[in-house]
Amino acid sequence: MNIVFSDEQRLHHGRGELGDGRLMPVVEMPRRAEMILARAREVGLGEVIAPEDYGRAPLEAVHAPDYLDFLETAWNDWEAEHGGEHDALPLIWPVRSLRNVPPDHIDGRLGYYALGATTPITAHTWRSATASANTALSAAALLAEGERAAFALCRPPGHHATRDQLGGYCFLNNAAIAAEWLRERGSARVAVLDVDYHHGNGTQAIFYDRPDVLFISTHADPRQEFPYFLGYSDECGAGAGEGFNLNLPLAWGSDWTAFAPALEAATSRIADFAPEVLVVSLGVDTFERDPISRFKLTSDAFPRVGAKLAALGLPTLFVMEGGYAVEEVGVNAVGVLTGFEDA
Amino acid sequence: MNIVFSDEQRLHHGRGELGDGRLMPVVEMPRRAEMILARAREVGLGEVIAPEDYGRAPLEAVHAPDYLDFLETAWNDWEAEHGGEHDALPLIWPVRSLRNVPPDHIDGRLGYYALGATTPITAHTWRSATASANTALSAAALLAEGERAAFALCRPPGHHATRDQLGGYCFLNNAAIAAEWLRERGSARVAVLDVDYHHGNGTQAIFYDRPDVLFISTHADPRQEFPYFLGYSDECGAGAGEGFNLNLPLAWGSDWTAFAPALEAATSRIADFAPEVLVVSLGVDTFERDPISRFKLTSDAFPRVGAKLAALGLPTLFVMEGGYAVEEVGVNAVGVLTGFEDA
Repeated sequence: MNIVFSDEQRLHHGRGELGDGRLMPVVEMPRRAEMILARAREVGLGEVIAPEDYGRAPLEAVHAPDYLDFLETAWNDWEAEHGGEHDALPLIWPVRSLRNVPPDHIDGRLGYYALGATTPITAHTWRSATASANTALSAAALLAEGERAAFALCRPPGHHATRDQLGGYCFLNNAAIAAEWLRERGSARVAVLDVDYHHGNGTQAIFYDRPDVLFISTHADPRQEFPYFLGYSDECGAGAGEGFNLNLPLAWGSDWTAFAPALEAATSRIADFAPEVLVVSLGVDTFERDPISRFKLTSDAFPRVGAKLAALGLPTLFVMEGGYAVEEVGVNAVGVLTGFEDA
Repeated sequence: MNIVFSDEQRLHHGRGELGDGRLMPVVEMPRRAEMILARAREVGLGEVIAPEDYGRAPLEAVHAPDYLDFLETAWNDWEAEHGGEHDALPLIWPVRSLRNVPPDHIDGRLGYYALGATTPITAHTWRSATASANTALSAAALLAEGERAAFALCRPPGHHATRDQLGGYCFLNNAAIAAEWLRERGSARVAVLDVDYHHGNGTQAIFYDRPDVLFISTHADPRQEFPYFLGYSDECGAGAGEGFNLNLPLAWGSDWTAFAPALEAATSRIADFAPEVLVVSLGVDTFERDPISRFKLTSDAFPRVGAKLAALGLPTLFVMEGGYAVEEVGVNAVGVLTGFEDA
């Protein structure tokens, strides 16, 4: 399958994320994408294609216009107030007793438009995030043109980004943008399967009241893991979307034995839904040596994931999400894709 | 007037707060209290009295039991998960698209029970915060015994703490705890006047639906300043509390000429309310050289504030809140108190 990637996606490189009570190096780094790209080339996965620019319309189909304005201008506002020596991080947020309105000051707007402090905004964030979204859209277009599968090597990732909140290294929800674009291009039903270690809270929230986009996520139990406040098994969708959201949380330490039944439940539900296209939010931080995760999948599990997905027989768009074991991220991510192709 | 203070209030000393995109030294430091105490002794303000322990009941009259449990155990849980090298700071929060429920993991609970990342929990936080609340209660007891005024040298401060959220260097809302205790001891009406540079969002939220506790705050416009998401002039109280909340936000750069009319409006409303007791949330970060604030009050303004409050002729409890110009915080805070006494 062909790979879509843009060099602009390398530009965003946060200098610090809050974790363990300190600022530490951001694990979501450009080298992740480089390792995946190198591995795709090494195995001859397909042609590497630069994305087209789809403009603002497909972003606004998923994100609030004021949020996009914020993302585009945040660094300049931050630099004007604080200088550019440190990246922009939020320090207060409008939860419970506080009012949910964006203030004028950049620190207040950062808090309003963020859901966490692990996601610095840098001088290049907007450029890389839009390039990443265009990568997802360009790969979706390959499916629309009749390809069986395509790989959007998105970076920064997207699945934690909500309609109007950044977080978890994500700014624009690439998978949701591509899924919505495929819907608007004529696919009556789209399924999004998120196999990242972390729950895809943004994607869930964006489609939560919709029966035309099925969202399924396998992930670490949010009682114990980021994003903590979404991803529970009782979240089944709302209104017309009731029954079209399926969360399959798993305990810390889950290996293939625990993961495979969840994947089976996910693909079974997808088959019942009979979508015209499948979007896979592909995270490989389920890997046993991922530095911020606690599942125990070995590298040979990833081709099995790909084979299982191929058995659905659906046009499939792979959208890269997490995976922070940099040395192995290429082998593991591309392992899913070759497993899919070889099935 | 007598001063209540406990050495235990010195113990809490955070190592870093998030600001300007980095972890910087916490401006709310033990030396603030030491400078105020030294100045109070220097001018012979009154006797320095150690607080009594009032136990958990008066804390639960204002704060949620699960929040108190969290505060008491958070450091141990943090240390067990992350070690004790860095203080506990939250990194994700349950705003908008996320569910407002406390998870199991300490990082998730930190996010649930915090409203910002400027307020580290340390090994000594619970001890200092409860000592600070006992200081407010012990000073309130002096009023109940018939004193005209008392000074609770509270530290850590309290006015940003809500029913179940820490933030803005605050853990237990000392002023609210004292005000509620005075109400329960028989004062039919209590007024709380917050003259700190920052809006007293916690105190407002705690009494927002109550007609028996009038809350008034002069502060920097939240469109431009922490806490950003509360303190607007259209917040007038709710339900039975409608009309019993008054916010008087002022622009950056406000000096005495701008501050005095707000203080006049505040005292006029208090006089109309005719409370039996006045609680003053005393912040002196309105000072022109405060390192994190942008008002322009000079040191000679503070005795004028005290004189204005004295003119109300009410039993008055001063509860220390903010003020971060450490070298001048003693002169400025005690200036209010001597201005009150000399009027």
